[in-house]
Amino acid sequence: MLLDKVNCPSDIKQLSVEQLGILAEEIRHFLIENLATTGGHFGSNLGVVELTLALHQVYNSPVDKIIWDVGHQAYVHKILTGRKHLFPTLRKYKGMSGFPKRGESEHDMFDVGHSSTSISAALGYAIGRDLKKENSKVVAVIGDGAMTGGMAFEALNHAGHVKSDMVVVLNDNEMSIATNVGAITNYLTKLRVDPHYSSFKKDIANVLHKIGNVGDKTEKYLKRLRDSFKTLLVPGMLFEEFGFTYMGPIDGHDLATLKKYLEQAKNTKGPVLLHVVTQKGKGYAVAADAPDKMHSVSVGFNAKPGNAPKVIKPAAPTYTKVFGDTLIKLARQNQDIVGITPAMPIGSGMIKYAEEFPDRFFDVGIAEQHAGTFAAGLACSGKRPVLAIYSTFLQRAYDQVIHDICIQNLPVTIAIDRAGLVGEDGETHQGAFDISFLRCIPNIKIMMPKDENELQHMLYTASVHGDGPVAVRYPRGTGYGVKMDEEFKVMEIGKSETVREGKDAAILALGPMVHVAENAAELLAADGVEARVVNMRYAKPLDEELLLELAERGTPIITIEEAAIAGGLGSAILEFYAKRRITGVELFPMGLPDLFVEHGSPQQLLDSVGLNATTLADYVKTMVPLKQKRA
Amino acid sequence: MLLDKVNCPSDIKQLSVEQLGILAEEIRHFLIENLATTGGHFGSNLGVVELTLALHQVYNSPVDKIIWDVGHQAYVHKILTGRKHLFPTLRKYKGMSGFPKRGESEHDMFDVGHSSTSISAALGYAIGRDLKKENSKVVAVIGDGAMTGGMAFEALNHAGHVKSDMVVVLNDNEMSIATNVGAITNYLTKLRVDPHYSSFKKDIANVLHKIGNVGDKTEKYLKRLRDSFKTLLVPGMLFEEFGFTYMGPIDGHDLATLKKYLEQAKNTKGPVLLHVVTQKGKGYAVAADAPDKMHSVSVGFNAKPGNAPKVIKPAAPTYTKVFGDTLIKLARQNQDIVGITPAMPIGSGMIKYAEEFPDRFFDVGIAEQHAGTFAAGLACSGKRPVLAIYSTFLQRAYDQVIHDICIQNLPVTIAIDRAGLVGEDGETHQGAFDISFLRCIPNIKIMMPKDENELQHMLYTASVHGDGPVAVRYPRGTGYGVKMDEEFKVMEIGKSETVREGKDAAILALGPMVHVAENAAELLAADGVEARVVNMRYAKPLDEELLLELAERGTPIITIEEAAIAGGLGSAILEFYAKRRITGVELFPMGLPDLFVEHGSPQQLLDSVGLNATTLADYVKTMVPLKQKRA
Repeated sequence: MLLDKVNCPSDIKQLSVEQLGILAEEIRHFLIENLATTGGHFGSNLGVVELTLALHQVYNSPVDKIIWDVGHQAYVHKILTGRKHLFPTLRKYKGMSGFPKRGESEHDMFDVGHSSTSISAALGYAIGRDLKKENSKVVAVIGDGAMTGGMAFEALNHAGHVKSDMVVVLNDNEMSIATNVGAITNYLTKLRVDPHYSSFKKDIANVLHKIGNVGDKTEKYLKRLRDSFKTLLVPGMLFEEFGFTYMGPIDGHDLATLKKYLEQAKNTKGPVLLHVVTQKGKGYAVAADAPDKMHSVSVGFNAKPGNAPKVIKPAAPTYTKVFGDTLIKLARQNQDIVGITPAMPIGSGMIKYAEEFPDRFFDVGIAEQHAGTFAAGLACSGKRPVLAIYSTFLQRAYDQVIHDICIQNLPVTIAIDRAGLVGEDGETHQGAFDISFLRCIPNIKIMMPKDENELQHMLYTASVHGDGPVAVRYPRGTGYGVKMDEEFKVMEIGKSETVREGKDAAILALGPMVHVAENAAELLAADGVEARVVNMRYAKPLDEELLLELAERGTPIITIEEAAIAGGLGSAILEFYAKRRITGVELFPMGLPDLFVEHGSPQQLLDSVGLNATTLADYVKTMVPLKQKRA
Repeated sequence: MLLDKVNCPSDIKQLSVEQLGILAEEIRHFLIENLATTGGHFGSNLGVVELTLALHQVYNSPVDKIIWDVGHQAYVHKILTGRKHLFPTLRKYKGMSGFPKRGESEHDMFDVGHSSTSISAALGYAIGRDLKKENSKVVAVIGDGAMTGGMAFEALNHAGHVKSDMVVVLNDNEMSIATNVGAITNYLTKLRVDPHYSSFKKDIANVLHKIGNVGDKTEKYLKRLRDSFKTLLVPGMLFEEFGFTYMGPIDGHDLATLKKYLEQAKNTKGPVLLHVVTQKGKGYAVAADAPDKMHSVSVGFNAKPGNAPKVIKPAAPTYTKVFGDTLIKLARQNQDIVGITPAMPIGSGMIKYAEEFPDRFFDVGIAEQHAGTFAAGLACSGKRPVLAIYSTFLQRAYDQVIHDICIQNLPVTIAIDRAGLVGEDGETHQGAFDISFLRCIPNIKIMMPKDENELQHMLYTASVHGDGPVAVRYPRGTGYGVKMDEEFKVMEIGKSETVREGKDAAILALGPMVHVAENAAELLAADGVEARVVNMRYAKPLDEELLLELAERGTPIITIEEAAIAGGLGSAILEFYAKRRITGVELFPMGLPDLFVEHGSPQQLLDSVGLNATTLADYVKTMVPLKQKRA
C-alpha cells in the first residue's frame, strides 16, 4: 500500500502521476471504509481526492497556504498531513474535527465550517505575505455552491482590484453553475496561460484563425464566432470582469492536467481563478448518484460499494420533519405562506413542501443576507414568509433581521433549526447565540417548543399572530414521539405553561430543557424537594405574571436553556426584576458557558456543560437548603 | 413656479420633457435652499433629480413600487410625493426622516438606511405580485457603490434565476464601476431593446456590418471586433451573466432618454438592469467637485452656488479624528498594524492614515462580511489588523466576527465608531446593539472610553494586549477637549477606574455616560447623597473585584450605558451576581429601551430615553431612601 508510507506532504512529492493515481484509489478505499464506521462528509471528500493530491504536490504546505472553503472536503488533506490514524475519532468528542482547525495541524490555515469565507481569508494571507515581502503561495479551494454567497463576491471584487498573487480553485461539482467543458474553451485556456500568447488580442486572433473559415459568409462565420465567445464567456468572463485571470474548466480527476494547470496558476502574476470540474462522490456509486443526500452521513453504513447507507429509523420524528409537515399544513390553509431556504431544502425538511408548492418555495442559494431581505420584501407585499434557517447561519443575516425585518415590524416567521448544540459539526455550527443576538432587537418574539407537538402550534401561532416578526427556534434531532394534535392551537404570546407543580423551587426551562427539568424534578422529589417545572415557551416577551408571582412567593428560581447564558433567557429574567426594582429574588441561570463548544455527540456536549437532569437537580438542592436537610 | 403645483406624482404626469427640465431646475434650487438650512444628504439627491422625475412619470406609484437603495437619495421622491412642506423638519426630532419610511408615505415601499438591500426587497415585491397575479411594476434604484455589497450579488443571482419581471436601475455616479459610455454601446443597447432585433445573433451581425470592413484583413478586423465586444462586455455582460437584460449606459440627466429607456425596461419581460450614469451634486459646483466630502452635510451652509459649506470648527476633536490620529501613531510604532475600512475612509477618519501608509490601508468597498474575514486572514498571517466600522454596519459582519475572528481567537481590533445614538440618521443607524450581540461571543473583549484621551489608550491596549479580538466602541461626535497624553498607556484588561468616591450608591458607567454620571453625582451631592462614579471601561470582561466589593458593602448600584439594556453591561453584571449566587444586590440598569430610537439630535434622543444626569440622579435618589429623607 502506498498509503501506508504517506504521513506528510513530502511523502508524496516524488510520486509519479501513475503512483498518484494508485494512491487516489487507496485513499478512496480508506475514506469509504472509515466513514462507513464513523459517518462524516462523504461525497465532497471523494470528489477532491485527485485535486488534493495535486495541490500537495504542486504547493509546499505549510509554507504555502492551502485554504479550504467550508472545510467539509478536507479529509484527504487531513490524510496527507499526518492525521490518517485519527480517522476512527472523526467528529467524535475530543477526536478529530470534521473541518480544518489551526489547533489540529500546522497545515490547517483557517478554521472554517461556514461557506464562502476562503477567498477573503486567502486574500488576507496574500496581503500579509506581500507586506512581509515573503514568497509563499496562497490558494483557496471553494465549491461552486459557495460562490453564491455574497461575501465570496465581495472578496473577488477586492482581490481583483488589489491584484495580489493568489489562486482561487473553483471546485465545480456541477451543482450550481452550469459548466461548458469543451475543446474551444480548453484551447483558449491553454493559449491564455501560455506566456508566449499573453496578449488577449493575439489569443482571439489565433483562436479565430483556427475555428473560422474567414471569408464572405459573414452571417455563418459570426454565428460560430459568437458561439466561441459564449463558451469563453460562461462562466470565465464573469471572473475576468472581476480582474481575475480565468483558467479552465479542467477535469478535476485527471492528475496530469491538474498538476499542469496548478503549476501554471501558481506561477501567474495576480489573482487567478482555476475552474476545476469534479464529481461529488466519485468512486462510490451511491454517493455519486445522489450527491445531495450523501452530502453528509451521520451514522455509519455498510462500505460495500453500491450498498446504500443503513438508515436507522428513529422512533420519533425529527423537529426538522415536523417543521416541514407543518409548513405544508399551514400553506394549505393560508395561501400567503411562502417558504424560503438559503440552500438547505433537505436540511430544513422542505422537500415535500417544495413539491406541493413549487410556486411558493424559494431556494435562494447560499445567500442568507438576501434571504432575510427577500422575506421582508415578500412581507411588505402582503405575504407571510417563513424563512427556514439554521441558528448558526442566521448569524449571516443578522443585519437583515434588524434592518429589514424588525425595524419595519414585518410578519416574517424565522424558523430557526439546529438551535442549541448540534453535535458533530462542532464550534462553527453550534446554535448558541441566537437568543442573545435576537433578544436585544425590538419587535421580535422568540419561542422554543418543549416538544415536536408544540413546534407545530408555535409555527401556526407565528403565522396568524398579527404583525411583527417571530422567531421559532428548535433543536437538531428527534422529538419525543408525543402525540401530534390534529388541530392547530395558538400559543398565547408571552405565556408560559406550568408542567409540574412544586412549592420549593421553580425551574424555568426553555425547549427541550423542559424535559431535562422534568427529570430533575423526579430526582428532587425522591429527595423530598418539590420543584415546579415551567415550560417558558417564550424567551421574549416574558411571562411577567409568572415572574411577579414567583418573586412574591420568594420561590428560588433556576433557569435552564440550551443557549448562551450571556444575554439569554436567564439574563432576560434578571433584567426584568432589576428594571422592576424587585430585589432579593434568588435566581441561578443555567445555559451554555462563555466558550466555544467543540464537536461530540449532543449528549456528551450537554453533559460537558452541565445541561442535564442530575446537575440541574444538584443546583436546585443547593438553593433549597432546609429541604435538603429534611431529606 | 411649476414646483408650487406639484404635490403628488399625478401632478407631473402630463408635463412635457421641457417642463420637466424646468421643474428639475426648480427642484435643485429647492434642495440647495433647504439643505443650506437643515443639512442632509446633498450630492446624491442633486444627482437623481431627472431620474426621479422620469421614474414618477413612467411608473404609477404607489401601485408600482419604487424601491430606493440606502435611501439617502430619496429627497426628490419625497418632494414629488407630498412632503415638500416637511423639508424644514428634515432629519429633525419628530420631523421628516432622511430616508424612505413606510410610516411616512404610501409611496415609500421599504424602510432603508443600509446599503445593497433594494434588489432583494424588489424581488420580494415582484414575487409577491406574481403570486397574487397582479400587474404592478417593481423597480429598484441602486448606486454603483452599493453594488459591491455581497447581498446585492446574492439578489442578482436569485433574480436572474427566477426571471420575475423587475427593473434594477443602476445609478452609476462613476464612483466605483468604470463606465464605457460610447456610440457603439449605445447603439448595441438600442438594437437590443428594440423588439425587431431581439435575437442576439442578429444584433451582433448588424453591429458588425456597420463597424467592420468585412474582408481579408482578418487581424485588423478582429481587433475592432474585439474592441466592440469589450465595450459591450464591461460592465453589461456581467449582468447578462446573471440572467438580466442589460440596457445602457444612458445619460441620467437627459430626461427624454431616461423616459424612453425606463418605458422600454418597464415593458421588457424578466429582470432588466438599466445602467444610468449620473453626476453626484449635479447643478452645485462644490458638491459636484467633491462628491465624497459633500455626501452628507450635517450643518447648514450658505446656499449661494459656488460657496463651500460653513464648517463649524469644534473645540474638541471628534472621536473619529482621534481614532485616525492614533492609528497613525500605532502604525509608526508597529509595522504589523494594517487598517481596513468597508467604504468609509472619510467617515472613519482614515484619510491621513491612508496617505501615510498606502500599503497598509485597505478600503474594501461596501463589503462588511469580506472586511471581517479579510481581517481574520491578515491576523493569521501575523498582522494586527484594525477594522474600522460603524456599530450599525458591524451587524453585517456578525457571522464573520464569530466564525472567523472569535473562534480562532485572532488579534483583530474592531474599532466601532458611531456606537450609541447617532442622531439624525435615525433607527437604521443607531449603534444600539453591539454590546448585546458581541458580549455573548467567547474570546472577545469590549471596551468603551470615557473620553478621547482614553480612546487612544484603548486602541493601543488592543494592539499590544496579546492574543484575541478586542472591540473598542466609541461614539459619534466630539470628545471633551481633554488633554491628550503624549505616551500610550495600557488599560489593564477588565479593570475599572473610580473617578469619584461616594459611599451611598455606585454609578457604573460606560463611555460618555461617565460624564453624565459625574454630572449626576454633582446634583446628588447638592442633595446630600454621595454617589461613587465608576468608569467601567470594559463591558467584557467585567471588573469582578469591584463588583464583589460593592456587593459586600451592600451599595446600591445603577448601571448606565448608551446601548440596549437587553443583554448590555447592566445585564452582564446581573448575570455575574446570579452565577456567583450573590443575592440581594440592588441594581438598576439604565440604557436604551426595547424600541427603535428615531432620528433627532443626539441630545434630544438621549433625553427622550432618559439617559441624562437629572434622570440618573432621580433614580439614584430612589435607591437611597434614607439619605433622601435626610436631605
